[in-house]
Amino acid sequence: MKHLYSSAAVALLALSQSTLPAIAAGQSTPAASNVPGAEIPSINPDRSIAFALKAPDATSVLVAGGDGLGKGPFAMTKGADGTWSVTTPPSVPGFHYYWFVLNGVSVNDPASETYFGYGKETSAIEVPEDGADFYSIKNVPHGEVRAKWYLSKTTGEWRRAFVYTPPNYDEQQKTRYPLLILQHGSGEDETGWTRQGRAQFILDNLIAAGLARPMIVVMDRGYAQRPGGPAAGVGSNAWLQNLQLAFSSFEDVVIHDLIPAIDASYRTIPDREHRAMAGLSMGGMQTLFIALQHLDMFAYIGSFSGPIIPSLGAVNLLGANPQEHFDTKTAYGGAFADPSAFNKRVKLLWLGVGTAESDQFRTGIGGAVEALRGAGVRLEYFESRGTAHEWQTWRRDLYDFAPRLFR
Amino acid sequence: MKHLYSSAAVALLALSQSTLPAIAAGQSTPAASNVPGAEIPSINPDRSIAFALKAPDATSVLVAGGDGLGKGPFAMTKGADGTWSVTTPPSVPGFHYYWFVLNGVSVNDPASETYFGYGKETSAIEVPEDGADFYSIKNVPHGEVRAKWYLSKTTGEWRRAFVYTPPNYDEQQKTRYPLLILQHGSGEDETGWTRQGRAQFILDNLIAAGLARPMIVVMDRGYAQRPGGPAAGVGSNAWLQNLQLAFSSFEDVVIHDLIPAIDASYRTIPDREHRAMAGLSMGGMQTLFIALQHLDMFAYIGSFSGPIIPSLGAVNLLGANPQEHFDTKTAYGGAFADPSAFNKRVKLLWLGVGTAESDQFRTGIGGAVEALRGAGVRLEYFESRGTAHEWQTWRRDLYDFAPRLFR
Repeated sequence: MKHLYSSAAVALLALSQSTLPAIAAGQSTPAASNVPGAEIPSINPDRSIAFALKAPDATSVLVAGGDGLGKGPFAMTKGADGTWSVTTPPSVPGFHYYWFVLNGVSVNDPASETYFGYGKETSAIEVPEDGADFYSIKNVPHGEVRAKWYLSKTTGEWRRAFVYTPPNYDEQQKTRYPLLILQHGSGEDETGWTRQGRAQFILDNLIAAGLARPMIVVMDRGYAQRPGGPAAGVGSNAWLQNLQLAFSSFEDVVIHDLIPAIDASYRTIPDREHRAMAGLSMGGMQTLFIALQHLDMFAYIGSFSGPIIPSLGAVNLLGANPQEHFDTKTAYGGAFADPSAFNKRVKLLWLGVGTAESDQFRTGIGGAVEALRGAGVRLEYFESRGTAHEWQTWRRDLYDFAPRLFR
Repeated sequence: MKHLYSSAAVALLALSQSTLPAIAAGQSTPAASNVPGAEIPSINPDRSIAFALKAPDATSVLVAGGDGLGKGPFAMTKGADGTWSVTTPPSVPGFHYYWFVLNGVSVNDPASETYFGYGKETSAIEVPEDGADFYSIKNVPHGEVRAKWYLSKTTGEWRRAFVYTPPNYDEQQKTRYPLLILQHGSGEDETGWTRQGRAQFILDNLIAAGLARPMIVVMDRGYAQRPGGPAAGVGSNAWLQNLQLAFSSFEDVVIHDLIPAIDASYRTIPDREHRAMAGLSMGGMQTLFIALQHLDMFAYIGSFSGPIIPSLGAVNLLGANPQEHFDTKTAYGGAFADPSAFNKRVKLLWLGVGTAESDQFRTGIGGAVEALRGAGVRLEYFESRGTAHEWQTWRRDLYDFAPRLFR
């Protein structure tokens, strides 16, 4: 009978996945991103992190991961019981992907939840930030996150989007809401903003505090392939060699499939003054690519750490340096050619980057900000202090961006 | 600039996660459970499965998994390029958890989506069943699956449940619906029924065909720990030694927290004649434990491969053989002592098991069916042909069970 319950014997601990406890003074704390019952990885008061993996027969184990973990990979050492372990230097607050390299193979940590990143399910660690609870679940009214399937004429397939409906959406039957389309980064998917990003709690908290207007948020899958068309996927050189090709099928999905499906299913206010698009990294590129070509559809635009590709496409991402000169007359199809007209039409253009991101991101985005402001284009620019090309940057971005919408 | 897009270079292929293509004649097909773009694991027409893992520095790699994969683990062999591979014998149709054993360590397959099972994120392979499309997404009206957070007085924590609302729920504002509580198995969590089980598509298809009544389905996390109380988790011997302790806190959550929260937030019909509970394996145990003690709350009861524990608790699951004699007079607190009264009160008692499950499941459940029927208790008994203690059994169970509800 023990056999009968063998799988039962693994995981019956009722830890909330959502609480982000502060790190207790003087002791280490299991990460909130651990699977229930896992004591390690654990985070020390100085934000150094203890990792461990039992692997008696391995000959080499490292831990590696996102920028905020520090300059890895970190070699682990084998204990007498066959458990490899290491404590990293102090990490940056936020959400860091990581993985073990076990005899040369990158593998997940069985003690961690996984999150879709790098094109696969990947372990990650949530490192609390002192005093930052804007992305914690709190005792406030909560919205819902709904899995919405819709049939795409563009791709010929059923697609899944996630839809955040604000608190009391079901009760306020006479109320209609503005819509934000919010996109993930490359290698991630439509689960990213609610699992890694905790967007639903950020919005719940902003709305409860009266800081953001109640809104519907749709988070779609940022990949699309037309039937018989070239693969939109990376691995496909066609994608890397032609941004136009990579993004135009997703553009069609957003404009012709997604927005009509959302407007038909939810109580949106279906006009440009009540529609925003934003995204992180690749999702920021897509936002600028799509929204600036469809200003009849969007009045609010946000790019969170999104690389700036002024030519809108035909950019060879395999090339050595596609960093383009930002000519405000021609960039993005001439969207900024008449700054005064742009300022009248676009209620918000918002660009952000983390101060710990690489030069490529900071100079590209910073250069665009400088050029646009120099030409008289009104925009908001936000720097996330001390954070890299990671989710803590984008959580802060959303927290700054969402209150500015639909005012 | 190549560096900039390194993570982009992984996953931009727009494969629908939901389609379950039939296996093409004469050729192998990447599994629908693969991450986008992954060609392997692939399934051959005879349902043998090719697995592969690049691990040049490993000295031993096996693949192991759920019963339907066959009698593993299967040793993999190393090719000249450092890729280990194996083709399994023909597998059983359905959803099988699996993992690699890499130099003695169980790790996920980076080419597979992961699913919460065995208390952690676990790879799995979806093997299509010829002619079975009842769990495929089809061109029919779709319900939504909503993440609903609610505050539990029992545990003092915010808990996440998933709620299936039937097609057109938002449009039919005057319509109220019956409620099914549907629980996962041990080592799994509240994501199981929609990710592994595809319950939303099973219900969409049944409702579209007029075979099931539109209903709301709530899928909760089957673990609960009272503040300061003994851990409900396994690993905790208290759980293994006392079923009463293990399940009673979850019972309180269901009765005092979950049902009130759902009735307050959704248009349920809040009476016993319109409320059902069912679950698989541990969830079936919990269903019998909870529903038979609260017949004032439930008129429909289903146990899918749920072990039969007539004494309701104080059962030592660490013991050699807790298989109890099923005395219909005393089992489950005397719920069946008066068969005629039970038959009047309970609209449906449904028990099921797969024919390929172990003797322990089949004799326990079969014995209860025989004893109950012998005593005159009316029940439905369903055997899933050729399937083991796996999700294909439970998908079929739901497909048989749901049409019998609320009639």
